[in-house]
Amino acid sequence: MDETARTRQVAAEYVDSLEHRDWPRLTAVLAEDVVYEMPQTRERIRGRSRFLQFNIEYPGDWHLQPRRVVADGRLAALWLDVRVAAERQDACVWLEVSEQGLINRVTDYWPESYDPPAGREHLVERW
Amino acid sequence: MDETARTRQVAAEYVDSLEHRDWPRLTAVLAEDVVYEMPQTRERIRGRSRFLQFNIEYPGDWHLQPRRVVADGRLAALWLDVRVAAERQDACVWLEVSEQGLINRVTDYWPESYDPPAGREHLVERW
Repeated sequence: MDETARTRQVAAEYVDSLEHRDWPRLTAVLAEDVVYEMPQTRERIRGRSRFLQFNIEYPGDWHLQPRRVVADGRLAALWLDVRVAAERQDACVWLEVSEQGLINRVTDYWPESYDPPAGREHLVERW
Repeated sequence: MDETARTRQVAAEYVDSLEHRDWPRLTAVLAEDVVYEMPQTRERIRGRSRFLQFNIEYPGDWHLQPRRVVADGRLAALWLDVRVAAERQDACVWLEVSEQGLINRVTDYWPESYDPPAGREHLVERW
């Protein structure tokens, strides 16, 4: 298995272990010094144990389905369909994998819905 | 050049031609039936000529720098640093490339800043 294939597998395992609240499986794909960042809130979590705790404590009955997994060497991007009860949101996740094949950096974006600005109605359709 | 290398090149060319307002170069990497979507506003633009017009008309002195380009077969993900005058925002862009090596689908996310919810201060640092 080449580096990209290994990264793709680790990225899929990351989402699947989160979805199943399988903390030992999640632990197995995280580097001990993993850094998790959410640039929208300027929040950062350092280290595997804190990051695990963050996920264990995360409120709501959340569910994650990968819409797209893009892997390239030791980088991956995940486009997720996230559901919390009747709410749906997309997420964009950027992963970096160490030489040892463990995730050492996770950057999450949680884009919210908003109203489009005026002036481009002649070019767009809405759904 | 394999498919992934071609996709990586097309993705880089897409951003660079936008940054330089080089409309002929942008045209050369877009399929005629390209579909552009912004899920946050539920807006869709169909076709190369409308999508070009959208970019030509887009207001503001915007500038795009790729922070990360992740290519995998005929899929790519772009993490962009976007600046409009003194404002900075990140964007997440998902590309699909046709068999002919032209971009036929672009999905843009524009995540905005927000205040973090209470309850995780014991795990996070802010920046």
